[in-house]
Amino acid sequence: MNKRSLQELLKQIQDGSIEISQAMDRLRHWPVETLGEVRIDHHRDLRTGLPEAVFGETKTIPQLVEILSAMLKTPSVVLATRVDSKKAEAVCAQLPELTYHATARLLTGNKQYIPTGSGSGTVVVVTAGTSDLRVAEEARITLEWFGHTVATIYDAGVAGIHRILTQSPLLQQGRVIIVVAGMEGALPSVVAGLTGAPVIGVPSSVGYGVGAGGYSALFGMLTSCSPGLAVVNIDNGFGAACMAAAINRTP
Amino acid sequence: MNKRSLQELLKQIQDGSIEISQAMDRLRHWPVETLGEVRIDHHRDLRTGLPEAVFGETKTIPQLVEILSAMLKTPSVVLATRVDSKKAEAVCAQLPELTYHATARLLTGNKQYIPTGSGSGTVVVVTAGTSDLRVAEEARITLEWFGHTVATIYDAGVAGIHRILTQSPLLQQGRVIIVVAGMEGALPSVVAGLTGAPVIGVPSSVGYGVGAGGYSALFGMLTSCSPGLAVVNIDNGFGAACMAAAINRTP
Amino acid sequence: MNKRSLQELLKQIQDGSIEISQAMDRLRHWPVETLGEVRIDHHRDLRTGLPEAVFGETKTIPQLVEILSAMLKTPSVVLATRVDSKKAEAVCAQLPELTYHATARLLTGNKQYIPTGSGSGTVVVVTAGTSDLRVAEEARITLEWFGHTVATIYDAGVAGIHRILTQSPLLQQGRVIIVVAGMEGALPSVVAGLTGAPVIGVPSSVGYGVGAGGYSALFGMLTSCSPGLAVVNIDNGFGAACMAAAINRTP
Amino acid sequence: MNKRSLQELLKQIQDGSIEISQAMDRLRHWPVETLGEVRIDHHRDLRTGLPEAVFGETKTIPQLVEILSAMLKTPSVVLATRVDSKKAEAVCAQLPELTYHATARLLTGNKQYIPTGSGSGTVVVVTAGTSDLRVAEEARITLEWFGHTVATIYDAGVAGIHRILTQSPLLQQGRVIIVVAGMEGALPSVVAGLTGAPVIGVPSSVGYGVGAGGYSALFGMLTSCSPGLAVVNIDNGFGAACMAAAINRTP
Amino acid sequence: MNKRSLQELLKQIQDGSIEISQAMDRLRHWPVETLGEVRIDHHRDLRTGLPEAVFGETKTIPQLVEILSAMLKTPSVVLATRVDSKKAEAVCAQLPELTYHATARLLTGNKQYIPTGSGSGTVVVVTAGTSDLRVAEEARITLEWFGHTVATIYDAGVAGIHRILTQSPLLQQGRVIIVVAGMEGALPSVVAGLTGAPVIGVPSSVGYGVGAGGYSALFGMLTSCSPGLAVVNIDNGFGAACMAAAINRTP
Amino acid sequence: MNKRSLQELLKQIQDGSIEISQAMDRLRHWPVETLGEVRIDHHRDLRTGLPEAVFGETKTIPQLVEILSAMLKTPSVVLATRVDSKKAEAVCAQLPELTYHATARLLTGNKQYIPTGSGSGTVVVVTAGTSDLRVAEEARITLEWFGHTVATIYDAGVAGIHRILTQSPLLQQGRVIIVVAGMEGALPSVVAGLTGAPVIGVPSSVGYGVGAGGYSALFGMLTSCSPGLAVVNIDNGFGAACMAAAINRTP
Amino acid sequence: MNKRSLQELLKQIQDGSIEISQAMDRLRHWPVETLGEVRIDHHRDLRTGLPEAVFGETKTIPQLVEILSAMLKTPSVVLATRVDSKKAEAVCAQLPELTYHATARLLTGNKQYIPTGSGSGTVVVVTAGTSDLRVAEEARITLEWFGHTVATIYDAGVAGIHRILTQSPLLQQGRVIIVVAGMEGALPSVVAGLTGAPVIGVPSSVGYGVGAGGYSALFGMLTSCSPGLAVVNIDNGFGAACMAAAINRTP
Amino acid sequence: MNKRSLQELLKQIQDGSIEISQAMDRLRHWPVETLGEVRIDHHRDLRTGLPEAVFGETKTIPQLVEILSAMLKTPSVVLATRVDSKKAEAVCAQLPELTYHATARLLTGNKQYIPTGSGSGTVVVVTAGTSDLRVAEEARITLEWFGHTVATIYDAGVAGIHRILTQSPLLQQGRVIIVVAGMEGALPSVVAGLTGAPVIGVPSSVGYGVGAGGYSALFGMLTSCSPGLAVVNIDNGFGAACMAAAINRTP
Repeated sequence: MNKRSLQELLKQIQDGSIEISQAMDRLRHWPVETLGEVRIDHHRDLRTGLPEAVFGETKTIPQLVEILSAMLKTPSVVLATRVDSKKAEAVCAQLPELTYHATARLLTGNKQYIPTGSGSGTVVVVTAGTSDLRVAEEARITLEWFGHTVATIYDAGVAGIHRILTQSPLLQQGRVIIVVAGMEGALPSVVAGLTGAPVIGVPSSVGYGVGAGGYSALFGMLTSCSPGLAVVNIDNGFGAACMAAAINRTP
Repeated sequence: MNKRSLQELLKQIQDGSIEISQAMDRLRHWPVETLGEVRIDHHRDLRTGLPEAVFGETKTIPQLVEILSAMLKTPSVVLATRVDSKKAEAVCAQLPELTYHATARLLTGNKQYIPTGSGSGTVVVVTAGTSDLRVAEEARITLEWFGHTVATIYDAGVAGIHRILTQSPLLQQGRVIIVVAGMEGALPSVVAGLTGAPVIGVPSSVGYGVGAGGYSALFGMLTSCSPGLAVVNIDNGFGAACMAAAINRTP
Repeated sequence: MNKRSLQELLKQIQDGSIEISQAMDRLRHWPVETLGEVRIDHHRDLRTGLPEAVFGETKTIPQLVEILSAMLKTPSVVLATRVDSKKAEAVCAQLPELTYHATARLLTGNKQYIPTGSGSGTVVVVTAGTSDLRVAEEARITLEWFGHTVATIYDAGVAGIHRILTQSPLLQQGRVIIVVAGMEGALPSVVAGLTGAPVIGVPSSVGYGVGAGGYSALFGMLTSCSPGLAVVNIDNGFGAACMAAAINRTP
Repeated sequence: MNKRSLQELLKQIQDGSIEISQAMDRLRHWPVETLGEVRIDHHRDLRTGLPEAVFGETKTIPQLVEILSAMLKTPSVVLATRVDSKKAEAVCAQLPELTYHATARLLTGNKQYIPTGSGSGTVVVVTAGTSDLRVAEEARITLEWFGHTVATIYDAGVAGIHRILTQSPLLQQGRVIIVVAGMEGALPSVVAGLTGAPVIGVPSSVGYGVGAGGYSALFGMLTSCSPGLAVVNIDNGFGAACMAAAINRTP
Repeated sequence: MNKRSLQELLKQIQDGSIEISQAMDRLRHWPVETLGEVRIDHHRDLRTGLPEAVFGETKTIPQLVEILSAMLKTPSVVLATRVDSKKAEAVCAQLPELTYHATARLLTGNKQYIPTGSGSGTVVVVTAGTSDLRVAEEARITLEWFGHTVATIYDAGVAGIHRILTQSPLLQQGRVIIVVAGMEGALPSVVAGLTGAPVIGVPSSVGYGVGAGGYSALFGMLTSCSPGLAVVNIDNGFGAACMAAAINRTP
Repeated sequence: MNKRSLQELLKQIQDGSIEISQAMDRLRHWPVETLGEVRIDHHRDLRTGLPEAVFGETKTIPQLVEILSAMLKTPSVVLATRVDSKKAEAVCAQLPELTYHATARLLTGNKQYIPTGSGSGTVVVVTAGTSDLRVAEEARITLEWFGHTVATIYDAGVAGIHRILTQSPLLQQGRVIIVVAGMEGALPSVVAGLTGAPVIGVPSSVGYGVGAGGYSALFGMLTSCSPGLAVVNIDNGFGAACMAAAINRTP
Repeated sequence: MNKRSLQELLKQIQDGSIEISQAMDRLRHWPVETLGEVRIDHHRDLRTGLPEAVFGETKTIPQLVEILSAMLKTPSVVLATRVDSKKAEAVCAQLPELTYHATARLLTGNKQYIPTGSGSGTVVVVTAGTSDLRVAEEARITLEWFGHTVATIYDAGVAGIHRILTQSPLLQQGRVIIVVAGMEGALPSVVAGLTGAPVIGVPSSVGYGVGAGGYSALFGMLTSCSPGLAVVNIDNGFGAACMAAAINRTP
Repeated sequence: MNKRSLQELLKQIQDGSIEISQAMDRLRHWPVETLGEVRIDHHRDLRTGLPEAVFGETKTIPQLVEILSAMLKTPSVVLATRVDSKKAEAVCAQLPELTYHATARLLTGNKQYIPTGSGSGTVVVVTAGTSDLRVAEEARITLEWFGHTVATIYDAGVAGIHRILTQSPLLQQGRVIIVVAGMEGALPSVVAGLTGAPVIGVPSSVGYGVGAGGYSALFGMLTSCSPGLAVVNIDNGFGAACMAAAINRTP
C-alpha cells in the first residue's frame, strides 16, 4: 500500500463507501515505511537521509547492468560498491556513462545529482599505511557522492608517531574523522586522543600472521582507551562513510 | 614543559639569555599537548572536549578515595565508572558528597559543575532487554554529567518488533542514538534502518551459550547492513556516551 | 495506538472531525502488531501461539515477584526460566502458589490453565547422559505447561549405542524429538538417522577440555550428516520446547 | 542379512534344520535397519521418510555418473547437491536426462516420481538478500523434489524492516518457514516473532570482515530471543529442506 | 530383549507357538549388544574389556552413594573419577570402604578384585611439571585399578631437556607411554622421538595467558612431527589410561 | 661425534694420549642419539622402530628427486607423503621406479624391502564417508609399507548406524583400529564403544560451514565418552599409521 | 651421572679397570647438561646465566616452604613468582626471612646474594595504565634480584600520547625496554618507533569485552609495524625480565 | 617544520621579528621527531638505528620501481621484503642493479653501503625444518644487509632432539639466537633452555590441520617455560632480524 492507495482508503472511509471494520482489516499489515513512496530506493533516502547504493560483490554482471541502468534514469546519484575490475569493465562497456574508481572498487554515475549542502563540516579520512587506501578511497568517494567535503591524511601510522602529530591542525578541522588501519590498528586510538571530533575506526584486512583478516586491528580499535571512538566492520569503508554522513549532516 | 615554562624559554631567546642551539635542545622533546596545562585531567578536557573520568574497575579503595577527593576540589564534574557496590560503599563512607548509581555502577559528584549547552540535540538511549540496563544507564548518566539531554526507550528487542516501531517518533527526534543489545544484537540494525541519525551499537555481555560474553551481539552489529551504525566494545556504555557526546556537541 | 484508538481515529475520519492529511500523519508509525491487544504478553500469545514466559536469569527477586504476581492473576499458565534455587526460595516465600522445579530451574504456576489439545502428537525428549537432565527437564516441563504430551528417554549416549537402539519403538512414536547431548554431541545424528520425525538438537554445556562450554556438541550437531535435524543454542531447553511446540501444534 | 535371508533363517529354526545356539550366533550382529531392503538408498527412505540424495561436492565426475545413472533406473526422484557448473556440464553430457539448476547447484532427474501429498501445508522460503539465493534455491528445489509445496519471499532483510512486514500474510500461511540470511542473520528472529510456525534459520556464508564464513549469522540465529526457531549448518539449504519436510510431512 | 528372552523367542519359533511374521516384528529393533548380559556395567566390560567407571563431576552426593554402594556389592573394582574433596568426604562418611585419592580426585574400592595379568608390559607415565600431577595420578591409579603395571617419571619438562634424556632407559621399557604436559606441550614430541613405544599425549589445563585452558598444549601435541603419538582431551587422565590399557592388554 | 670417533676418544684416554680434562671438554656436548649411526634416517629407525618418510608438501621437485634417489639406493622402503599429482608426475619422470598412489598422494619405492612380521595383528581402517578416502588410503598404504596387515571398512558413517554395526565381526578382529571421519566426527566414538581394541581417530578436513577445516570432527573425537580412543591431527593419515604401527608392532 | 662420576669413569678407562665397550654402554645415555653439577638449580644458572626461580601458582604452601627453605640455605637469591597473598602470609609465617611484594605477588629472599654487574645498561619498564602495575612490578623486582638496574615510566598509555613523548629522554637511556599494556596494546609500537633499543612487549590481561584475557593486546603487539619489538606471554612479567636480563647481560 | 625552519623561527624570536604569542601558535603542533631531518627514511635511521625497508606485499610494481629507484640514489642499503617472484622479475627488469633472493622473497641493492661494525656478536639463525627456510632466509639476509654477522643451523627440529644438541657449541657463540619453527613450535623452548643468549622465536605458518596458519607454533612459543625467549608475529623473519639487530648493536 503506497501513499496514494492509503489516501484513497481514507477517502472511502470519509465518504462512507467502506466499513470501518473492513478498513481495519486492510490496514492490519500496512507497512509503516512504504507510506511515502512506492520505490524502495527513494524511500530509503527519505527514511535515513542516505541515497541507495548497490552492493556489487554478490551481483552478476547482468544484474548490475539492469539495476544501474534503471538508477541512471532517476534524478539521484548512482553508486555501486565492491565491484572488481573485471565486472566493472563489462558493466562500463554497456553503460559508458558510469565511472570506475579502481582503488576504491566503486562504480559511480549521475554526478550532476550530487546533493549540495549535505554536510555541516569537513570529514577527514586518515590511513595508517598504503594498503589501507582501497578502504579509505571507498569512504572518500562515497562521501563526496553523498555531497560531503572530504580531506585526507594518508600513510600516517603509529610506527612513526610524528607523522600524525604534524597533521594535528588538519585533524582539528574535522567535524568527524575516519581512520583506516590494519595490523595493530592503533592509529584511531592516537587520533581520538588528539581531537574532540568523533572518530570512526575502520579495521583493514591486509596483513599476515595474527594480523590476517583484520581481527587484530578490529579488536585493537574496540579496546581503545581513547574517548570518542566507534568502529565499523573490517574493510567497511562504505559503512564508515554512511556513519560519517549521518554525523555530519546538516540538522 | 607547560605553557608558562614555554613562555619563559621564548623570552630567554628574545632577550638573548639563551643560545638558539640550547633552546633547540630543550625543545627537542617538547610535548605538543602539555602546552596548555600542567594538570593532565584539565588538559584532556581542552584537547578532546570531554571531562576526565576515572576507570574504577582496577583501582583500589584508597586509590579511588585519593583521586576522587582531589577531583572534588576542582571546578568540574566528578565521574568514576565500573565501581562495584562494595567499593562504592567504602568510598562513599569517606566521601559522602559522592552519589552512587547502583545499576550503572557509577560514582558521581560536583553536580553543580555539569556544563550547560554541551549538546545540540537529544541523545536517545535504547535497550533490547532488561539485562542491558546496567550498560544503558552507564551511558545515560555519563551523558547527563557531560551536559547532554537524554531520552530513553528500554526493553524494545526485535523478538517483538512492534515494540520499537511504536517508538519511531521518539527515535526520529534523536540527534544521535545509542542502542544496547545482547544475544543476537539485532536491534541496532533495525533502528539504523528506521532513522537518519547516527546509531552507536553497544553489545551487552549478558547471555549464555554462543551468546556468552557478548561476541554474538558484537559481530551481529558489525555485520549489519543498515547504514549509519558504528559499534563500541562490549558493555562499554561509557565509551558509547563519549562517542555520542562528540557527535552531539555544539560546534 | 491500540485497537480502540484506531477505531476512534477511523470514526473521526468517517464523521469528518479530522482531515485526511492529519490522519495520515498519525497513522505514519502505526504499529502493525499492537492493533489487536494492548497487553504485550497477551499479544505474543495471539501472534506466535505460545504463552509468555519470563527469563529469570537477569531479573532480581523484586522484579520476579512483581511480574509473576501480576501473571498469576491472568487466566494463563505462569512460567519463569533459569531461576536459581536461592532466587526461587525467596520468590516462593512471597508467592507460595508457585512451584519450583530444581533440576529444571523453573518456576511454574496457574496449572489449571494448562491448555488442552495443544499438540497433535507426542514430543520425545532424549538425553545422552545424566548431566543433560537440567536442560531436558527445562524442555519437558515447558512443553507440559504449554499443553503438550511428552515422553522421555534419558541416559542413552552413543558410547553404548545399544542404549538408544533398544528405544527405537518409542522414538518412532514421536511427532518431534528433542535430543540433549554434551561433549561430542553425536546422539542427535544417530537419532535423526533412525526416525523420520524432525529432531531438535540441544547442545549441553557441561564438559571439560575442548568440551567445555558446549561448543563441541553444538558444532557436532550442526555438521551432522543425518537429515531432519536442526539445532538451538547451547543449554536452551526452553527454546527447544518452543520449537517442538510450534512443530507439534494442531493446525 | 536382508529380509529374505532372515525369513529363511527363521524357517530353518521352525523346521529344525538349525540349532538355536547357531541361530543366535548368526543373529548376533544382525543389523536392525537392513531388515526391510537390500538397497541402502531405499532403506533410508523407509527409515526416515526422505529419498536418498547424493552429496556431490566431494565426488568425482565418474563417481557422479555411475551413481546417478543407477539412481535414474529406480522409481524415485534423483537429486545431487553441491555440484558445481563444471562437473554438472560433464555429467549432463553423459546423462542428458538430468537437469542442472545453476543457482542451487543441484542436479535433478526422474521428475515423474515426485511424490504427491508429501506435505500437509506450504513451506515458505525467505531470504534476507540476493546473495542468499543459492542457499534458498537449494532448499526450494529439494523440497519440491520431495513433493512439498513451496512459496518464496526473497530479498527482505531487516535493514528495511517494512519489506518483511508487508509479507506478513504470506508468512502466516506457512506450515513451516525457512529463513536464509547472512551477515548479522537477524531476519529469522524477526520472522519467528511474527508467526507461530516453526522457523528454520540457515546462516549464509557470503560476507566479509567478521561476517565472512557465516559465523556471525549462525551465532545471531542461535542467540535469538524469538520462540520457535532452530538452526542448521551454514549454507545448508538441503538440510533445512529435510528438516522442513520432516515437520511438514503428513502424519 | 536379553539373552534369555531371545532364547525363548527362538524356542517359540521352533515349537511353532509363534508365527515367523510375528517373530520378525519383535526382532525388528533387537539390540545387538544387549544380547549377552542384562546389566549395563557388566556388558561394557565384555564389550570393551574395561571395567565400568563412574564420572563423578556431574553427579550429586546421593547419586554417588547410591551407584557406588551398588557397585561395591559386585565382584569387580569400583572407580569414580573427578570427585572433588567435599563430595568425597561426604561419600566416604557413608561408604567408609572407599578410598579417596586427593591429587587424582578418584574414589576407589573393591581392591581385592583388581584383575591380574591385564597388561603385557609396563605403562610409563611422564609429566612435564608439578601441576600436571593431578592428571598423571588419575591415569596411574586408573591403570593400577585396571590391573596394569605403571612406572612414573615426573617433572621432566623440555626447558631442561636433560631431565628427560637421563630417563631414557626407563622410557625404553614402556610398552606404552603417557605424557602429561601443559603450557607449550612439547614433551610428548620429544619423548615420541626417543622411543618406539606408542605415546599418548595428555594436555594439561593449568596455565595462564595463551596457555590457559590447555589449548596451546593440545595443539602443540596434535601438530607434533614425531611419529607414534596420539592425543586425548585436555586433562583427560582417565581417557589416557583407557587408551593405554587397550594398547597394553594381553591378546 | 659418531660411534667410531667415540671409540677413538676412549682409546686415547686408555693409552694416555689425551688428558681427562680435555676428554671431558670434548664429551661435554656429545649427542646421545648419534652414537650408533652416522646417517640420520637409519638412526631414526633404530630409535623409534619406524622407517624414515619424506614429508613432500613443502619440498620442491628437485629436492624430492635428490632425497628419494638417495633413499632408493638404501636397503629400506621409500615413502614420500603429501605429494600432489603435478609434483608426482615430474618426480616419477626422473625416478620411474617409484609408484604414485593418487588418492593417498603417496610416492613409494623399494617394495622388496617391506619388512615382514612387523605387526602382531591386523590394523582395521574405517571411514565415515567417501571424502575420507584420501586420508584413509594414506594410512593404509603407509602401514602396508611398514609391513603391517590392513583391513578396511569404508563409508560407514553414523547417519546410517547399521552400516558399522554389520561390520562388527571385522572390527573385533582388529588389534588396533583407525577411524577417519569428517563433519561431526562421531564414528570413532561409536566404534570405540563396540570394541576393546585401541581406536585412533583421524579428523578429516572436508566439509563446509562449521565443519570446514575439520575442527568439529577433531573436537567431537576429543570429547568422546567412549574408552580407548585417542586422536591425531586433522587429515594426518600418516601419523595415525605410525601410532598404529607402534601399537601393533611385535614385542 | 655428575662431574665426579664422569671423572671416575674416565680414570677407570685410563687405568684399564674398565673395558671400552662397557664404558660406551654406560655413556650411552649420559646427559649433556648434568655434567657440571648435581643440583638442578645450580646447573640452570651455569647453562642459561639466570638464577633458579620458583613458579608459585601451582605449588601448595608446604611445597613452597620446603623448596624455599632449602633455597635460603644456598648462596644465591631466592625468588618465587605468582604467590597470592594468602599463600604468602602462610609461607612467611614459617620463613620470616622472606619478603612479600604484594603488587608483584613475589616472595624474595637472600638479598645479600644479589649479583653485581649483571647488566651492561639500564632496563626501562613502561606501563600504559595502573592495572598493568602488577605485571610491571613482577618484571622490575625480578630484574633487580638478578642484579640489573631498572628505571620505570608508569601510566603512559597512547590515549594521551604526550605522556610517553615527554619521557623520551629516559627511554633513550634504556639498553632494553619492557612495555606492559592491556586493552589495545598499542604502547609498545609507539615506544619501539621512538627508540633504537630492543623493546619487549608484555600484554596485560586486565580488561573487558574483546579486551578480556589480554588477547587484543597480544595480537596488537605481534602485528606492530615498529621494528625492534618482540613479545612474551600475557601477564608474563617474569618472562619479560628474563629476556631483558639475557639481552642486558655483560658479555 | 624541519630543523632549518625551526632555527629560522627561533632567530625571528631572537631578533624580535615575531611575537612570542605568534611563535607559540606556530610551535603548538611542532613534531618532535621531524626536528633532525626532513626525509622520513633518514630520520627513522637516526631514531631507531635501523635502515628503512620497503614492505613489498601490498605495493604495486610501479610503486616499487618508483620507491626503490629513489632509494638506490641514496647512500644506504636498499631492502624490500615480501616481493613475490612475479613482481620481482618485473621490478628487476627496470632496475637491474637490484638482486632478488627467491627463497627469502627479498629485493636488495646498494650492497656497497652495508654498514660495518653494526653488531657486537654473531646472530645465530636456527630452523626446525626445511619449510621454515623462507622465513629464516628473510631474517638472515636482512641482518647481513644491516651489517651483522650471521651463522645458521637449519633443519634441527625436536622430533630428533640430538640434531640441536650436537649444535650446542655453535649456539653458545650466539649473542642472540633466532629460531624459526612451525607445527608445534617447540624448538625455541629447547634452545632457550640450552643457552644464556636471548632467543627470538618466529612461528612459521606452513602446516596443516591445527598447525595451519602458525597459531599452534605461536602459542607454543608464547607458553614456553624456558627463560630468555620472546616472540614475533607468524612468518615475520624481518621483524626477528630487527629485534636481533637492536639487541646485537654495538653500544
